[in-house]
Amino acid sequence: MKLGRLNHVGVATPSIEASVALYRDVLGATGVSEPFDLPAQGVRVCFVDTPNTQIELIEPLGQASPIHGFLAKNPAGGQHHLCYEVPDILEAKAWFEGKGARLLGEPRIGAHGTLIFFVHPKDMGGVLTEIMETPKGAH
Amino acid sequence: MKLGRLNHVGVATPSIEASVALYRDVLGATGVSEPFDLPAQGVRVCFVDTPNTQIELIEPLGQASPIHGFLAKNPAGGQHHLCYEVPDILEAKAWFEGKGARLLGEPRIGAHGTLIFFVHPKDMGGVLTEIMETPKGAH
Repeated sequence: MKLGRLNHVGVATPSIEASVALYRDVLGATGVSEPFDLPAQGVRVCFVDTPNTQIELIEPLGQASPIHGFLAKNPAGGQHHLCYEVPDILEAKAWFEGKGARLLGEPRIGAHGTLIFFVHPKDMGGVLTEIMETPKGAH
Repeated sequence: MKLGRLNHVGVATPSIEASVALYRDVLGATGVSEPFDLPAQGVRVCFVDTPNTQIELIEPLGQASPIHGFLAKNPAGGQHHLCYEVPDILEAKAWFEGKGARLLGEPRIGAHGTLIFFVHPKDMGGVLTEIMETPKGAH
């Protein structure tokens, strides 16, 4: 497998609204998507464009959101995960499993509408890593 | 100011050697620089290419390295900072200061040989943020 594009950096935040203001007004972002809910993953997300990748702002959605634990440790928010693209998610799953890396659940639909899975940070040098099938027609 | 390219994601590691093995053998990286020391910043660094940006692996260098504290909290390593490019570092400094964001020290030469500064994570939604002048002739 070849290391793919960094599709996005996931950044957890207690408030997407406050983060969007920061990215627009201080960091100078001009491309910011409308926030939307991903109930299956317990998050509300919003994408901020940079010229070469995106920042995915993630806010907890619901009581069972996996982001609550992260924000308890990092109340101001912070870097949550890195997401790399692959051409074929099932090949990637087999590759990572063959390398002994632990997947966090089965492939499922992610924020860009394609299949994704997460790899345990303990097997990724402390970095929670999302692997995402490249959307058809992208790039 | 406009949000610039994500030049790199800084990832702290207790061992660049072990991280390079992970990025090459498991994540499939093919472009990996030779590690080099940045004594003024107390770090040893190594760049891993992705198709659209880089991962900067950072290992502590010397007793006073600012990375020791991060690794004490995150012994396996983890995401340390995000670095965005700007066309002019002094304009960027004035911009961030004008927005009330706290800079961590004055502009100084960074790992790519151009001037950089860091902005306090408390003013950046919990994300330690590096601002870097784009190298001449890059991109």
